Amino acid sequence: MPLHRFYYAQGLFSAQDKQEITDRITKNYTDLNLPAFYVIVVFIEVPEDSIFIGGKPATNFVRVVSQHLSRTMDSYEGKQAILDFLEAAFAPYVKDRGLDWEIHVEEHERELWRTQGINPPLPNTDAEKLWAKENKAIPFQ
Amino acid sequence: MPLHRFYYAQGLFSAQDKQEITDRITKNYTDLNLPAFYVIVVFIEVPEDSIFIGGKPATNFVRVVSQHLSRTMDSYEGKQAILDFLEAAFAPYVKDRGLDWEIHVEEHERELWRTQGINPPLPNTDAEKLWAKENKAIPFQ
Amino acid sequence: MPLHRFYYAQGLFSAQDKQEITDRITKNYTDLNLPAFYVIVVFIEVPEDSIFIGGKPATNFVRVVSQHLSRTMDSYEGKQAILDFLEAAFAPYVKDRGLDWEIHVEEHERELWRTQGINPPLPNTDAEKLWAKENKAIPFQ
Repeated sequence: MPLHRFYYAQGLFSAQDKQEITDRITKNYTDLNLPAFYVIVVFIEVPEDSIFIGGKPATNFVRVVSQHLSRTMDSYEGKQAILDFLEAAFAPYVKDRGLDWEIHVEEHERELWRTQGINPPLPNTDAEKLWAKENKAIPFQ
Repeated sequence: MPLHRFYYAQGLFSAQDKQEITDRITKNYTDLNLPAFYVIVVFIEVPEDSIFIGGKPATNFVRVVSQHLSRTMDSYEGKQAILDFLEAAFAPYVKDRGLDWEIHVEEHERELWRTQGINPPLPNTDAEKLWAKENKAIPFQ
Repeated sequence: MPLHRFYYAQGLFSAQDKQEITDRITKNYTDLNLPAFYVIVVFIEVPEDSIFIGGKPATNFVRVVSQHLSRTMDSYEGKQAILDFLEAAFAPYVKDRGLDWEIHVEEHERELWRTQGINPPLPNTDAEKLWAKENKAIPFQ
């Protein structure tokens, strides 16, 4: 459900960094009782001459694009909470290392979403709880 | 119009797989009388240490992000039909090979869309039919 | 704020082309008094066998996906003005070289957007003017 794409110049993150960032992001969602397998993280590394901020090569910058499908946030406070938890997840690898960053979250329509060919269950239903417990998509009524 | 991005770990698809997946997706749209050149497919392959599902390296997983501009689906049934036809297009290369997958479709605004510098014609107009027949963008009134 | 992703087959643009395209895009926004550092451009180059248009390898084609967060365009005319200025920015490197292209602009929600951990100021506020003048994110009330 949440799809997180990180865009940055090659070399900013090691394989271990990527694993740890992902672990921290994933935990955010499992702490909310979402199935772990909903959380997809993709690191899209480009050459230093292929990413720019303000007209300059962005050698010190990470751009995050996050997409949510399972949950939407109606209130300003809810939206900030999402941003807070995502920024906290990657802060040790970005802010704390002196990198610059920018993030936005998009909310897309759950009726146009499927995993393993199944429209995922609504939030907090028994089916979603089972998916979280078993950590896989299971057909349901 | 439809832009389909496939994210996955390097090596899951051969060049021939990519061509065949694309052929099958494209046919879905031309069968609906859309111009073939509307259909863009991009395969974004990343190293195995750069894509994760549920906190684990996603070595067996394909994440599809599709964007529609020319048509929007208002009903639940119409939305499922789109997902059905897209999943059927890549099933022989994904589901039938035992890969996991997830897809969502986004609908974006056609007034903020241009191909070859032209705002494309409305659905089922004579201009769209001509674009489909000639398979190129042609200025129209 | 504006995030521009260019998808195309490897080799279509040189490092200098990428810098110049970026310069021209960035100037569009700074001419509107937006902070330069809002403008992110990412060139995502894929092998020739990984991008298709109309079922054929897209060796001569550029697909641009632009995302706006700071400003939205309510009128048809405003939307066309955005497309005009973006297409003009890359025309010398695309249209004038005989490449094909397609672009769409998405408008996403500013309350789900942060740069350097800060929700950016509203359009044309004193804070935004300061961000533009200093070309960096500065905490504000």
